[in-house]
Amino acid sequence: MKAITLIEPTETNPKAQLNLAEVPTPELQDGEVLVKVHAAGVNRADLLQSQGNYPVPPGASEFLGLECAGVIEDPGTTGRSKGEKVACLLAGGGYAEYVAVPEGQLMPIPEGYSMVEAASIVEVACTVWSNIGMLAGLKKGQTFLIHGGAGGIGTFAIQMGKALGATVAVTAGSAEKLATCKELGADILINYREEDFAEVLKNKVDVILDIIGAKYLNQNLTALAKDGHMVTIGLQGGRKGELNLGLMLNKRLNISATALRSRDLADKANIVAQTIEHIWPMLADGRITHQIDRTLPLSEAGQALDLLEDSAVTGKIVLEVR
Amino acid sequence: MKAITLIEPTETNPKAQLNLAEVPTPELQDGEVLVKVHAAGVNRADLLQSQGNYPVPPGASEFLGLECAGVIEDPGTTGRSKGEKVACLLAGGGYAEYVAVPEGQLMPIPEGYSMVEAASIVEVACTVWSNIGMLAGLKKGQTFLIHGGAGGIGTFAIQMGKALGATVAVTAGSAEKLATCKELGADILINYREEDFAEVLKNKVDVILDIIGAKYLNQNLTALAKDGHMVTIGLQGGRKGELNLGLMLNKRLNISATALRSRDLADKANIVAQTIEHIWPMLADGRITHQIDRTLPLSEAGQALDLLEDSAVTGKIVLEVR
Repeated sequence: MKAITLIEPTETNPKAQLNLAEVPTPELQDGEVLVKVHAAGVNRADLLQSQGNYPVPPGASEFLGLECAGVIEDPGTTGRSKGEKVACLLAGGGYAEYVAVPEGQLMPIPEGYSMVEAASIVEVACTVWSNIGMLAGLKKGQTFLIHGGAGGIGTFAIQMGKALGATVAVTAGSAEKLATCKELGADILINYREEDFAEVLKNKVDVILDIIGAKYLNQNLTALAKDGHMVTIGLQGGRKGELNLGLMLNKRLNISATALRSRDLADKANIVAQTIEHIWPMLADGRITHQIDRTLPLSEAGQALDLLEDSAVTGKIVLEVR
Repeated sequence: MKAITLIEPTETNPKAQLNLAEVPTPELQDGEVLVKVHAAGVNRADLLQSQGNYPVPPGASEFLGLECAGVIEDPGTTGRSKGEKVACLLAGGGYAEYVAVPEGQLMPIPEGYSMVEAASIVEVACTVWSNIGMLAGLKKGQTFLIHGGAGGIGTFAIQMGKALGATVAVTAGSAEKLATCKELGADILINYREEDFAEVLKNKVDVILDIIGAKYLNQNLTALAKDGHMVTIGLQGGRKGELNLGLMLNKRLNISATALRSRDLADKANIVAQTIEHIWPMLADGRITHQIDRTLPLSEAGQALDLLEDSAVTGKIVLEVR
């Protein structure tokens, strides 16, 4: 089969080379199905992995790609049917013509969705639901702050927050991006180049979905209300920062940091099942819409990562594999 | 009535003066009962308050004392009966002959317990259950680390951890204190003067009950296993420390910091109800035993706080009021 392979960056050639190459088709483990990939979603984690900054979990495919949609080619030892259309949460391997997928990570194609649309929504739906729905337990009437509101995670999280009945606040770096957030339902729009979100939202936020990390740590804790919960899923603003435990204790705050990819099979199957239950109905009736910036052919995966690196996209990029 | 009043420390007289003085009996608010205090538990928070380091929450009694046992003298607007024996979770005011208590903070005297014994257990039971049972959700088979295992919180938490089926690890500063922890059921004993608990327990701990704060922050995160949860309820080792969010993300860690006293009435009533449900049976059948270091008369409250400050006690001090 064909897959995108990676020549990792070196000191003399600091940019990773992505090539479409001929590689062996994956062999199935017990409980896995072989999926013929039609479309693969592009995520920031792919960019980090291509730069050598996201170690591949043990046992995962060496290829990039954390989500796809396609058709079951070989059901292996599972009771699934050849030809069944599926969306898949992957530990890797989506940038390829075939991928092996544990049965617990198969999802139905959302009602009314194309393969490309389905491939754009799996990772973000599982990530946002597992962190905000399951871990932080966002409830109706609470205030929900999303950093990077116009990105792939942000555009999804705004709509989910509104569907759950929360007041949604977002930060973004331009008026254009904030306009996108507003269209999706965001209530409080903060341009981080012009305003300090911690001052605007001081003691008002119940749940934060954070992709910045250290740089915003103190401001996030300032923004949180009593019993607030910050969930960090990205470290675009650094890993280490000063933590004020006194402030945390006074307001009874909670900090969690999570990643989806490193979870074990049972955890992932649980998240996938709960995401289908809670989020798939919101996709079917349009409370959450997919946000696709553009599609590119699989061979242009390198360009897709360049666009992500330049923050030049609003919503998702999807690779069309066939 | 008589109560312990406080002359706050000044620069020239840095030690707080505690005096037994004549003061007005508290007036009842709607939903409160007046309790004739028989015994009042002594807590570290009382020491901090006497030093001016623990602001009294708005609306709370100005007097020290977060727990007591006694008899209802005036049921006010509640349906309670005069003469009913009760243990009480207080926002303050236990170091006195009478105290006003919201109905949601009344608990039955545990089966077989004296007034003194009951007064020794309320605050610690509500604190440990709300943090470890309700917030961190400690489960059978998990590993539970307790700092300061021989103190009032620690001796209770060891027994509760064992009753829930956890493996219990403790830190303490002497062989004598560790022997006390072992008698109460602790499985892993660490003298923090001789060993680095983070090395002994690296990646092994599911839940930490922390009273140290900043000084142990990094070591606590090192000790935590994947999906681990550290709950900080004291800051004896400082408020501010460097947080490694990258380590948190890699292991999917959670940090919470909480305080019981500042919670609202509904929160406290919920905690009290759940503590009665889950902990009172463990007191009745002896899975958890009270740990009383000594009793002192109310007039010796100052000496009680001195003993706490010198870490000269194993278990609780209780003031006998009548």
